[in-house]
Amino acid sequence: MTVTLDDVREAAERIKGVAHRTPVLRSRTLDELVGATVFLKCENFQRVGAFKFRGAYNAASRLSPEQVAKGIAAYSSGNHAQAIALAARELGTTAVILMPEDTPKSKMDAVAGYGAEIVTYDRYTGDRTAIGEALAAERGMALIPPYDHPHVIAGQGTAALELIEEVGELDALLGPVGGGGLIAGSATAAKGLRTGICMIGVEPEAGDDTKRSLEAGRRVSIPVPRTIADGQAADIPGELTFSINQRLLDGIALVTDDEIRDAMRFAFERLKIVVEPSGATALAALLAGRLDRVPPRVGLIISGGNIGAERFAELLNP
Amino acid sequence: MTVTLDDVREAAERIKGVAHRTPVLRSRTLDELVGATVFLKCENFQRVGAFKFRGAYNAASRLSPEQVAKGIAAYSSGNHAQAIALAARELGTTAVILMPEDTPKSKMDAVAGYGAEIVTYDRYTGDRTAIGEALAAERGMALIPPYDHPHVIAGQGTAALELIEEVGELDALLGPVGGGGLIAGSATAAKGLRTGICMIGVEPEAGDDTKRSLEAGRRVSIPVPRTIADGQAADIPGELTFSINQRLLDGIALVTDDEIRDAMRFAFERLKIVVEPSGATALAALLAGRLDRVPPRVGLIISGGNIGAERFAELLNP
Repeated sequence: MTVTLDDVREAAERIKGVAHRTPVLRSRTLDELVGATVFLKCENFQRVGAFKFRGAYNAASRLSPEQVAKGIAAYSSGNHAQAIALAARELGTTAVILMPEDTPKSKMDAVAGYGAEIVTYDRYTGDRTAIGEALAAERGMALIPPYDHPHVIAGQGTAALELIEEVGELDALLGPVGGGGLIAGSATAAKGLRTGICMIGVEPEAGDDTKRSLEAGRRVSIPVPRTIADGQAADIPGELTFSINQRLLDGIALVTDDEIRDAMRFAFERLKIVVEPSGATALAALLAGRLDRVPPRVGLIISGGNIGAERFAELLNP
Repeated sequence: MTVTLDDVREAAERIKGVAHRTPVLRSRTLDELVGATVFLKCENFQRVGAFKFRGAYNAASRLSPEQVAKGIAAYSSGNHAQAIALAARELGTTAVILMPEDTPKSKMDAVAGYGAEIVTYDRYTGDRTAIGEALAAERGMALIPPYDHPHVIAGQGTAALELIEEVGELDALLGPVGGGGLIAGSATAAKGLRTGICMIGVEPEAGDDTKRSLEAGRRVSIPVPRTIADGQAADIPGELTFSINQRLLDGIALVTDDEIRDAMRFAFERLKIVVEPSGATALAALLAGRLDRVPPRVGLIISGGNIGAERFAELLNP
């Protein structure tokens, strides 16, 4: 099983008019700082404030009418939760979401705001996959996982597809890596359009499970990472995402939490956009000089902007 | 002397490729809250982070080569200063900027960053027009005022022109009023395209000089206002801007500093954009229900986003 450029194109058709075609921003200041032309695909402007709606809606829209009617279940540290909640509402059904109990309040409020039911668990002790599957089975609901699913991956790939359609050929494309769905979908789209593009995933230093796994040639598990990039706190790559990323990624860059903070501040003060920690890691890698070389035309996915004003202030003034 | 739609169109030609054609954002959440379709023209993404670059560059580009060579002078509480500094740099000359000594540091740093010289004064005791004119005369430089100048007003009007070109007819257009240049230019463009559009200016309650002046039928002076909306701290409308606004505005809405804070938070958490206090007043008027009625299609100018992360946190947690 894999995901192809055609799958991404089909997902693009399915989400049309439901998901936003998000803007691509440019910054002369950023271009001058890094010595390249940088295109920022701003998924913080996506519905639910993150790219996750693309994959969630694509996957949900492919369920049978009977499955949809029974409701949709999901487990997520945040943005996938909102994405499934909204996708369910858009399809006229209900959702139940399993969330870590230490999820930022703004994310819980948003999920509840879309009309979904929330069930919590302790992400340092519980196995969310097992609990989520049990919950879905108990309710008779279809479970849509946050990344390790071909329809989710194909949906996430639509952001890169739109970016390249809009700005033309890129030499490199950077995106954050949590479970690996966004970067797997992006690589599928970008390498499907041009095999020579350099695909770089970015992980927080504390959550380098994909980097370690690529080096080992197999999926490696790490302790649950403690990082401000809560959307990238995966402890092991997905099976399907890893098989795609192993084939398509050219490398992984790591960034520290302080580099992520600096990138969030740069986005705020220079780009005038709000970016959550996980959404800022690709920008952080570029600004902190974490790439071996920066080619002339670089695409970069700003993956999300879900952060409350107080939490933002705390993070920037620790 | 006045300003016409053709002047705005000519300005649009002059700034093309130098100023950004800024994005127009939409928000389903905002539309649902106010019961209208709202189009946000995002001048916080303009060069120098505010609409001011439009008017500054248009005016500077119309100086003679001899005048340009001698340099450009300006007085400004902030964004016009950056705008003139950058316009001068773009035209290959120098700028000297007279700024209030209590200007936020981020704005002073930005002006210096564009290579301009800064001279400071006390805005509670000094007459910036007189000091600015003396400074320009002493240096033999052309002075470009922040709003009361036909080329500045025509330049500011290009934001509304672009907005309406992009989204089509609007029933109402809202923008902030400081000295009145942005709203005068916007009204010139919008009413030039469609006389029936409802043009509403928005002032901070403490700085209601234009509202009082419109009610009195003549320019009225108020004590220097103390408001978080530092870009709207004018104490009397401009002569030319007032004559245009008297003719073209349908009304003025007032907003409190707390309503501005709420709008800044809404912009941050829901729209994912950074808006400075003066840039948020039109949004504040809409969100706080300060309009008598909200027609179906509303345009709104987010005029700027120049605010440091620390100042932003202070303002939202007073």
